[in-house]
Amino acid sequence: MSDRHDFERYMRLALEEAQTAFDAGEVPVGAILVKDSAVIARAHNTVEQTGNAAAHAELLCLQAGMQALGPRLTDCTLYVTLEPCAMCAGACVNAKLYRLVYGAFDDTAGCCGSKMDLTDRCFLHSVETWGGILEPECKALLTDFFQALR
Amino acid sequence: MSDRHDFERYMRLALEEAQTAFDAGEVPVGAILVKDSAVIARAHNTVEQTGNAAAHAELLCLQAGMQALGPRLTDCTLYVTLEPCAMCAGACVNAKLYRLVYGAFDDTAGCCGSKMDLTDRCFLHSVETWGGILEPECKALLTDFFQALR
Repeated sequence: MSDRHDFERYMRLALEEAQTAFDAGEVPVGAILVKDSAVIARAHNTVEQTGNAAAHAELLCLQAGMQALGPRLTDCTLYVTLEPCAMCAGACVNAKLYRLVYGAFDDTAGCCGSKMDLTDRCFLHSVETWGGILEPECKALLTDFFQALR
Repeated sequence: MSDRHDFERYMRLALEEAQTAFDAGEVPVGAILVKDSAVIARAHNTVEQTGNAAAHAELLCLQAGMQALGPRLTDCTLYVTLEPCAMCAGACVNAKLYRLVYGAFDDTAGCCGSKMDLTDRCFLHSVETWGGILEPECKALLTDFFQALR
Protein backbone atom coordinates (compact mmCIF):
# COMPACT_ATOMS: atom_id res chain seq x y z
CA MET A 1 0.00 0.00 0.00
CA SER A 2 1.97 2.97 -1.28
CA ASP A 3 -0.13 5.48 0.62
CA ARG A 4 0.49 4.02 4.07
CA HIS A 5 3.02 6.69 4.97
CA ASP A 6 0.56 9.45 4.11
CA PHE A 7 -2.25 7.57 5.80
CA GLU A 8 -0.28 7.43 9.05
CA ARG A 9 0.80 11.05 8.82
CA TYR A 10 -2.78 12.32 8.62
CA MET A 11 -4.01 9.76 11.14
CA ARG A 12 -1.58 11.31 13.63
CA LEU A 13 -3.39 14.62 13.12
CA ALA A 14 -6.71 12.86 13.68
CA LEU A 15 -5.23 11.41 16.88
CA GLU A 16 -4.41 14.94 18.03
CA GLU A 17 -8.07 15.81 17.60
CA ALA A 18 -9.05 12.65 19.48
CA GLN A 19 -6.73 13.67 22.33
CA THR A 20 -8.48 17.06 22.47
CA ALA A 21 -11.77 15.21 22.85
CA PHE A 22 -10.26 13.00 25.56
CA ASP A 23 -9.05 16.04 27.49
CA ALA A 24 -12.56 17.52 27.33
CA GLY A 25 -14.15 14.36 28.72
CA GLU A 26 -15.55 13.29 25.36
CA VAL A 27 -15.26 9.84 23.80
CA PRO A 28 -11.89 10.34 22.09
CA VAL A 29 -12.53 10.31 18.35
CA GLY A 30 -10.94 12.75 15.92
CA ALA A 31 -11.22 13.37 12.19
CA ILE A 32 -9.30 15.20 9.47
CA LEU A 33 -10.44 15.99 5.93
CA VAL A 34 -7.71 16.19 3.30
CA LYS A 35 -7.73 17.28 -0.34
CA ASP A 36 -4.55 17.35 -2.47
CA SER A 37 -2.37 17.05 0.64
CA ALA A 38 -4.06 20.06 2.24
CA VAL A 39 -5.99 19.75 5.49
CA ILE A 40 -9.44 21.20 4.73
CA ALA A 41 -11.10 20.57 8.09
CA ARG A 42 -10.50 18.96 11.47
CA ALA A 43 -12.93 18.06 14.21
CA HIS A 44 -13.45 15.97 17.29
CA ASN A 45 -16.41 14.42 19.02
CA THR A 46 -18.43 16.99 21.01
CA VAL A 47 -21.50 14.94 21.95
CA GLU A 48 -21.22 15.68 25.70
CA GLN A 49 -20.42 19.36 25.36
CA THR A 50 -23.19 20.06 22.86
CA GLY A 51 -25.76 17.54 24.09
CA ASN A 52 -26.10 16.54 20.45
CA ALA A 53 -25.85 12.82 19.74
CA ALA A 54 -25.08 13.64 16.11
CA ALA A 55 -21.95 15.67 16.97
CA HIS A 56 -19.58 12.91 15.93
CA ALA A 57 -16.10 13.88 14.75
CA GLU A 58 -16.66 12.58 11.22
CA LEU A 59 -19.98 14.33 10.64
CA LEU A 60 -18.64 17.64 11.98
CA CYS A 61 -15.52 17.30 9.83
CA LEU A 62 -17.49 16.46 6.69
CA GLN A 63 -19.84 19.39 7.33
CA ALA A 64 -16.93 21.79 7.80
CA GLY A 65 -15.41 20.40 4.61
CA MET A 66 -18.62 20.94 2.68
CA GLN A 67 -18.83 24.48 4.01
CA ALA A 68 -15.39 25.07 2.46
CA LEU A 69 -15.73 23.04 -0.74
CA GLY A 70 -19.44 22.53 -1.42
CA PRO A 71 -21.56 19.40 -1.14
CA ARG A 72 -19.38 17.01 -3.15
CA LEU A 73 -16.18 15.82 -1.52
CA THR A 74 -15.23 13.62 -4.48
CA ASP A 75 -11.53 14.47 -4.25
CA CYS A 76 -11.23 14.23 -0.47
CA THR A 77 -10.03 11.68 2.04
CA LEU A 78 -11.50 11.57 5.54
CA TYR A 79 -9.22 10.25 8.29
CA VAL A 80 -10.93 9.18 11.50
CA THR A 81 -9.57 7.37 14.54
CA LEU A 82 -12.60 5.05 14.96
CA GLU A 83 -14.63 3.18 12.37
CA PRO A 84 -17.68 5.31 11.50
CA CYS A 85 -21.19 4.41 12.66
CA ALA A 86 -24.18 4.17 10.29
CA MET A 87 -24.89 7.90 10.51
CA CYS A 88 -21.33 8.91 9.65
CA ALA A 89 -20.86 6.21 7.00
CA GLY A 90 -24.09 7.43 5.42
CA ALA A 91 -22.80 11.02 5.54
CA CYS A 92 -19.63 9.90 3.71
CA VAL A 93 -21.83 8.38 1.00
CA ASN A 94 -24.10 11.45 0.81
CA ALA A 95 -21.05 13.73 0.45
CA LYS A 96 -19.71 11.47 -2.31
CA LEU A 97 -16.45 11.20 -0.39
CA TYR A 98 -13.61 9.67 -2.38
CA ARG A 99 -11.81 7.82 0.38
CA LEU A 100 -12.21 6.94 4.06
CA VAL A 101 -9.30 5.89 6.26
CA TYR A 102 -10.00 4.82 9.82
CA GLY A 103 -8.03 3.53 12.78
CA ALA A 104 -9.73 1.32 15.35
CA PHE A 105 -12.42 -1.14 14.35
CA ASP A 106 -15.85 -1.01 16.06
CA ASP A 107 -17.51 -4.40 16.30
CA THR A 108 -20.64 -2.95 17.91
CA ALA A 109 -21.56 -0.03 15.68
CA GLY A 110 -18.95 0.11 12.90
CA CYS A 111 -20.58 0.34 9.49
CA CYS A 112 -17.49 0.40 7.30
CA GLY A 113 -16.51 -3.26 7.42
CA SER A 114 -17.13 -4.56 10.93
CA LYS A 115 -20.86 -4.72 11.69
CA MET A 116 -21.69 -4.06 8.05
CA ASP A 117 -20.23 -2.01 5.21
CA LEU A 118 -22.35 0.88 3.98
CA THR A 119 -19.47 2.31 1.94
CA ASP A 120 -19.21 -0.58 -0.49
CA ARG A 121 -21.78 -0.84 -3.28
CA CYS A 122 -24.81 -0.44 -1.03
CA PHE A 123 -25.85 2.84 -2.62
CA LEU A 124 -25.25 4.86 -5.79
CA HIS A 125 -21.90 6.07 -4.46
CA SER A 126 -19.20 3.87 -2.93
CA VAL A 127 -16.27 5.10 -0.84
CA GLU A 128 -12.82 3.55 -1.04
CA THR A 129 -12.25 2.44 2.54
CA TRP A 130 -9.18 1.42 4.54
CA GLY A 131 -9.36 0.33 8.18
CA GLY A 132 -6.79 -0.40 10.87
CA ILE A 133 -4.38 2.51 10.23
CA LEU A 134 -2.50 3.21 13.50
CA GLU A 135 -5.06 0.94 15.10
CA PRO A 136 -3.07 0.35 18.35
CA GLU A 137 -2.78 4.08 19.12
CA CYS A 138 -6.39 4.82 18.15
CA LYS A 139 -7.69 1.90 20.20
CA ALA A 140 -5.48 2.65 23.22
CA LEU A 141 -6.91 6.15 23.54
CA LEU A 142 -10.46 4.75 23.60
CA THR A 143 -9.53 1.98 26.06
CA ASP A 144 -7.88 4.50 28.38
CA PHE A 145 -10.96 6.70 28.25
CA PHE A 146 -13.43 3.96 29.11
CA GLN A 147 -11.18 2.54 31.84
CA ALA A 148 -10.95 6.00 33.44
CA LEU A 149 -14.75 6.23 33.41
CA ARG A 150 -15.07 3.09 35.59
CA MET B 1 -53.43 0.81 14.16
CA SER B 2 -54.92 3.11 16.77
CA ASP B 3 -52.38 5.87 16.16
CA ARG B 4 -53.07 6.28 12.46
CA HIS B 5 -55.15 9.41 12.98
CA ASP B 6 -52.32 11.07 14.93
CA PHE B 7 -49.77 9.78 12.46
CA GLU B 8 -51.62 11.46 9.60
CA ARG B 9 -52.13 14.69 11.52
CA TYR B 10 -48.42 15.16 12.15
CA MET B 11 -47.51 13.89 8.69
CA ARG B 12 -49.56 16.77 7.28
CA LEU B 13 -47.30 19.16 9.20
CA ALA B 14 -44.27 17.36 7.77
CA LEU B 15 -45.84 17.80 4.32
CA GLU B 16 -46.08 21.56 4.95
CA GLU B 17 -42.32 21.55 5.61
CA ALA B 18 -41.77 19.51 2.45
CA GLN B 19 -43.80 22.08 0.49
CA THR B 20 -41.55 24.84 1.86
CA ALA B 21 -38.56 22.89 0.54
CA PHE B 22 -40.30 22.46 -2.81
CA ASP B 23 -40.96 26.18 -3.09
CA ALA B 24 -37.27 26.86 -2.39
CA GLY B 25 -36.12 24.50 -5.15
CA GLU B 26 -35.04 21.80 -2.71
CA VAL B 27 -35.90 18.11 -2.92
CA PRO B 28 -39.22 18.26 -1.04
CA VAL B 29 -38.73 16.41 2.23
CA GLY B 30 -40.02 17.67 5.58
CA ALA B 31 -39.79 16.44 9.15
CA ILE B 32 -41.53 17.07 12.47
CA LEU B 33 -40.40 15.96 15.93
CA VAL B 34 -43.17 15.34 18.47
CA LYS B 35 -43.13 14.59 22.19
CA ASP B 36 -46.33 14.13 24.22
CA SER B 37 -48.41 15.66 21.41
CA ALA B 38 -46.22 18.78 21.33
CA VAL B 39 -44.24 19.73 18.23
CA ILE B 40 -40.65 20.11 19.45
CA ALA B 41 -38.96 20.84 16.11
CA ARG B 42 -39.69 21.10 12.41
CA ALA B 43 -37.30 21.20 9.47
CA HIS B 44 -37.01 20.72 5.74
CA ASN B 45 -34.25 19.72 3.39
CA THR B 46 -31.79 22.58 2.74
CA VAL B 47 -29.02 20.78 0.84
CA GLU B 48 -29.06 23.19 -2.12
CA GLN B 49 -29.29 26.37 -0.08
CA THR B 50 -26.53 25.40 2.34
CA GLY B 51 -24.33 23.36 -0.02
CA ASN B 52 -24.30 20.76 2.75
CA ALA B 53 -25.14 17.22 1.65
CA ALA B 54 -25.92 16.37 5.28
CA ALA B 55 -28.65 19.03 5.57
CA HIS B 56 -31.47 16.49 5.31
CA ALA B 57 -34.80 17.33 6.94
CA GLU B 58 -34.57 14.46 9.44
CA LEU B 59 -31.05 15.22 10.65
CA LEU B 60 -31.83 18.93 11.03
CA CYS B 61 -35.04 18.14 12.89
CA LEU B 62 -33.33 15.65 15.22
CA GLN B 63 -30.54 18.15 15.92
CA ALA B 64 -33.03 20.91 16.71
CA GLY B 65 -34.87 18.45 18.96
CA MET B 66 -31.67 17.54 20.81
CA GLN B 67 -30.89 21.22 21.25
CA ALA B 68 -34.25 21.53 23.02
CA LEU B 69 -34.34 18.23 24.91
CA GLY B 70 -30.80 16.90 25.14
CA PRO B 71 -29.16 13.97 23.36
CA ARG B 72 -31.76 11.29 24.12
CA LEU B 73 -35.03 11.49 22.25
CA THR B 74 -36.42 8.36 23.88
CA ASP B 75 -39.95 9.76 24.21
CA CYS B 76 -40.12 11.35 20.77
CA THR B 77 -41.61 10.46 17.41
CA LEU B 78 -40.05 11.75 14.19
CA TYR B 79 -42.40 12.23 11.24
CA VAL B 80 -40.75 12.51 7.84
CA THR B 81 -42.24 12.53 4.36
CA LEU B 82 -39.59 10.24 2.80
CA GLU B 83 -37.95 7.09 4.16
CA PRO B 84 -34.65 8.10 5.80
CA CYS B 85 -31.28 7.32 4.22
CA ALA B 86 -28.46 5.54 6.11
CA MET B 87 -27.19 8.81 7.62
CA CYS B 88 -30.58 9.83 8.96
CA ALA B 89 -31.56 6.32 10.08
CA GLY B 90 -28.23 6.16 11.93
CA ALA B 91 -28.95 9.54 13.51
CA CYS B 92 -32.32 8.21 14.74
CA VAL B 93 -30.49 5.29 16.36
CA ASN B 94 -27.80 7.54 17.87
CA ALA B 95 -30.45 9.83 19.35
CA LYS B 96 -32.26 6.79 20.80
CA LEU B 97 -35.44 7.95 19.10
CA TYR B 98 -38.54 6.11 20.26
CA ARG B 99 -40.49 6.05 17.02
CA LEU B 100 -40.09 6.92 13.35
CA VAL B 101 -43.06 7.46 11.03
CA TYR B 102 -42.40 8.07 7.35
CA GLY B 103 -44.42 8.62 4.21
CA ALA B 104 -42.97 7.60 0.84
CA PHE B 105 -40.73 4.58 0.48
CA ASP B 106 -37.27 4.96 -1.08
CA ASP B 107 -36.13 1.87 -2.94
CA THR B 108 -32.75 3.39 -3.81
CA ALA B 109 -31.49 4.77 -0.52
CA GLY B 110 -34.14 4.01 2.11
CA CYS B 111 -32.63 2.37 5.18
CA CYS B 112 -35.75 1.90 7.26
CA GLY B 113 -37.26 -1.09 5.50
CA SER B 114 -36.73 -0.72 1.75
CA LYS B 115 -33.04 -1.07 0.87
CA MET B 116 -32.24 -2.30 4.38
CA ASP B 117 -33.49 -1.60 7.90
CA LEU B 118 -31.00 0.03 10.24
CA THR B 119 -33.70 0.80 12.80
CA ASP B 120 -34.51 -2.83 13.65
CA ARG B 121 -32.10 -4.76 15.89
CA CYS B 122 -28.96 -3.79 13.97
CA PHE B 123 -27.50 -1.84 16.87
CA LEU B 124 -27.91 -1.45 20.62
CA HIS B 125 -30.98 0.73 20.12
CA SER B 126 -33.92 -0.05 17.86
CA VAL B 127 -36.54 2.42 16.68
CA GLU B 128 -40.21 1.51 16.26
CA THR B 129 -40.80 2.28 12.61
CA TRP B 130 -43.92 2.78 10.49
CA GLY B 131 -43.75 3.49 6.74
CA GLY B 132 -46.31 4.47 4.12
CA ILE B 133 -48.26 7.08 6.12
CA LEU B 134 -49.89 9.50 3.63
CA GLU B 135 -47.66 7.87 1.06
CA PRO B 136 -49.59 9.15 -2.01
CA GLU B 137 -49.27 12.80 -0.97
CA CYS B 138 -45.63 12.47 0.09
CA LYS B 139 -44.70 10.67 -3.11
CA ALA B 140 -46.67 13.05 -5.36
CA LEU B 141 -44.72 16.04 -4.09
CA LEU B 142 -41.42 14.29 -4.91
CA THR B 143 -42.67 13.15 -8.33
CA ASP B 144 -43.84 16.68 -9.18
CA PHE B 145 -40.46 18.07 -8.16
CA PHE B 146 -38.39 15.70 -10.27
CA GLN B 147 -40.75 16.08 -13.25
CA ALA B 148 -40.39 19.86 -13.06
CA LEU B 149 -36.60 19.48 -13.09
CA ARG B 150 -36.67 17.71 -16.47
